Amino acid sequence: MIKARITVTLKNGVLDPQGKAIEHALSGMGFGGVGAVRQGKVFDVELAESDKAKAEADLKAMCDKLLANTVIENYAVEIA
Amino acid sequence: MIKARITVTLKNGVLDPQGKAIEHALSGMGFGGVGAVRQGKVFDVELAESDKAKAEADLKAMCDKLLANTVIENYAVEIA
Repeated sequence: MIKARITVTLKNGVLDPQGKAIEHALSGMGFGGVGAVRQGKVFDVELAESDKAKAEADLKAMCDKLLANTVIENYAVEIA
Repeated sequence: MIKARITVTLKNGVLDPQGKAIEHALSGMGFGGVGAVRQGKVFDVELAESDKAKAEADLKAMCDKLLANTVIENYAVEIA
């Protein structure tokens, strides 16, 4: 069994209104010096697979097909 | 300037219908051997601060007060 963490983040230059809202909320709560905040998603996936290379290829395919919108998002696959 | 990544995940035992939906979607798309999928959030925060210890304390306070619901979520702060 392989456990992997997939992190999906917006590409640079893509507007992130949710991140902006968090930024303003944090400043409004009195946290000083808060710069850019960007929000992304994380997926913890368990795979019944023993071959790490095969698992990584599968996970990348999952990102391309379902988990990430590669037009506006980057993804990173980390196998634990 | 400090760049940090905050990862917020559901605690074990908390139901994650979104993760379940992804799990089923992946299986339905032909990916074999997909076990549990859990979805979480990631925040990339820039802080105008040079003291790492102070930054970490601030980031943890942000998680406790705004970014995470500590009743059902865990958070991890990583300073780059």
